[in-house]
Amino acid sequence: MKALQEKIKQDGLVLSDQVLKVDSFLNHQVDPVLMKKMGEEFARLFRKDGVTKILTLESSGISPALMAALELKVPMVFARKKKPLTQSADVYTATVHSFTKNTTHEIIVSRAFLTNRDKVLIIDDFLAYGQAAEGLIDIVKQAGANLSGIGIVIEKAFQPGGERLRSRGIRVESLAVIQSLKNGTVSFLEEAYAN
Amino acid sequence: MKALQEKIKQDGLVLSDQVLKVDSFLNHQVDPVLMKKMGEEFARLFRKDGVTKILTLESSGISPALMAALELKVPMVFARKKKPLTQSADVYTATVHSFTKNTTHEIIVSRAFLTNRDKVLIIDDFLAYGQAAEGLIDIVKQAGANLSGIGIVIEKAFQPGGERLRSRGIRVESLAVIQSLKNGTVSFLEEAYAN
Repeated sequence: MKALQEKIKQDGLVLSDQVLKVDSFLNHQVDPVLMKKMGEEFARLFRKDGVTKILTLESSGISPALMAALELKVPMVFARKKKPLTQSADVYTATVHSFTKNTTHEIIVSRAFLTNRDKVLIIDDFLAYGQAAEGLIDIVKQAGANLSGIGIVIEKAFQPGGERLRSRGIRVESLAVIQSLKNGTVSFLEEAYAN
Repeated sequence: MKALQEKIKQDGLVLSDQVLKVDSFLNHQVDPVLMKKMGEEFARLFRKDGVTKILTLESSGISPALMAALELKVPMVFARKKKPLTQSADVYTATVHSFTKNTTHEIIVSRAFLTNRDKVLIIDDFLAYGQAAEGLIDIVKQAGANLSGIGIVIEKAFQPGGERLRSRGIRVESLAVIQSLKNGTVSFLEEAYAN
């Protein structure tokens, strides 16, 4: 998605060969107009799939997931990382390890909001090692729901998450695919420019 | 806001005299169309105030804040509850106690995203004791920014947060104001029906 790639080039900060900081428009400060365009693009990519629910993980996934849900006119569910006091015991749980933060936590979704009648589109802000996606897929499976695919804002193609998911036949659509962050420069995969 | 009150009546669960569970449309599963309407209502209420930035707290505040930001065409910033690895040391911090969860945590906003040129609208999902709002106001003050007011999705008028804030001259606009949750029933303040 051209507008996103331009925003990354303009405002993204390359902190290392592995880490791109995009907290000025994606995951701390959020550009709502760009976010809406991304929601429209996710909707365009998955409109024919009969999606009944968008699933994401708090917090950074919420903004793109909400905009995709708005366009597809379906509810958005965000998995929680911690059990709130008012949540019932009737939940799906999965474990997610974050390589970036070197933490492992449990993620939780109420059984009430995901059933075997759902066709689920998972949305997240980043795809690197794919751990968050794996946790969400695990929850979709526990629900007996159908996985339509995964929509990612920024995929880091030099980390193994995307390849692992696609090799299992899962449809992964990323709005920007980064080939390399070497020498402090963001290089996108050629094919991503096609959008 | 009528549509919100009807949704609360229809789908809200009164767990006790103090606790209303609205996780089927507000803070776990999210209704994107209702959320957009709430964003439009916040924008209508604060459109003349020259707001330059929406400030909220992860995670439940993000959805209404994003929709208000979309309508007002300004960036949304969500305070984080924990310091992520990629965040610089250059942050505003405040402490927030949650009476619901009986936890105290630090909230953090990068200095880059809030300055003394900003006019800030704080948005949050619930107003009860007002602790989250106080933490966000603290951060607005540290930035030397101007506080336009506070927009709340659901205010519990039988808890002291709203009164405390208004008594200090802060403009608080709540889309639904709950007078009581007694006998398992949601009673709204009469005036709130006017919207």
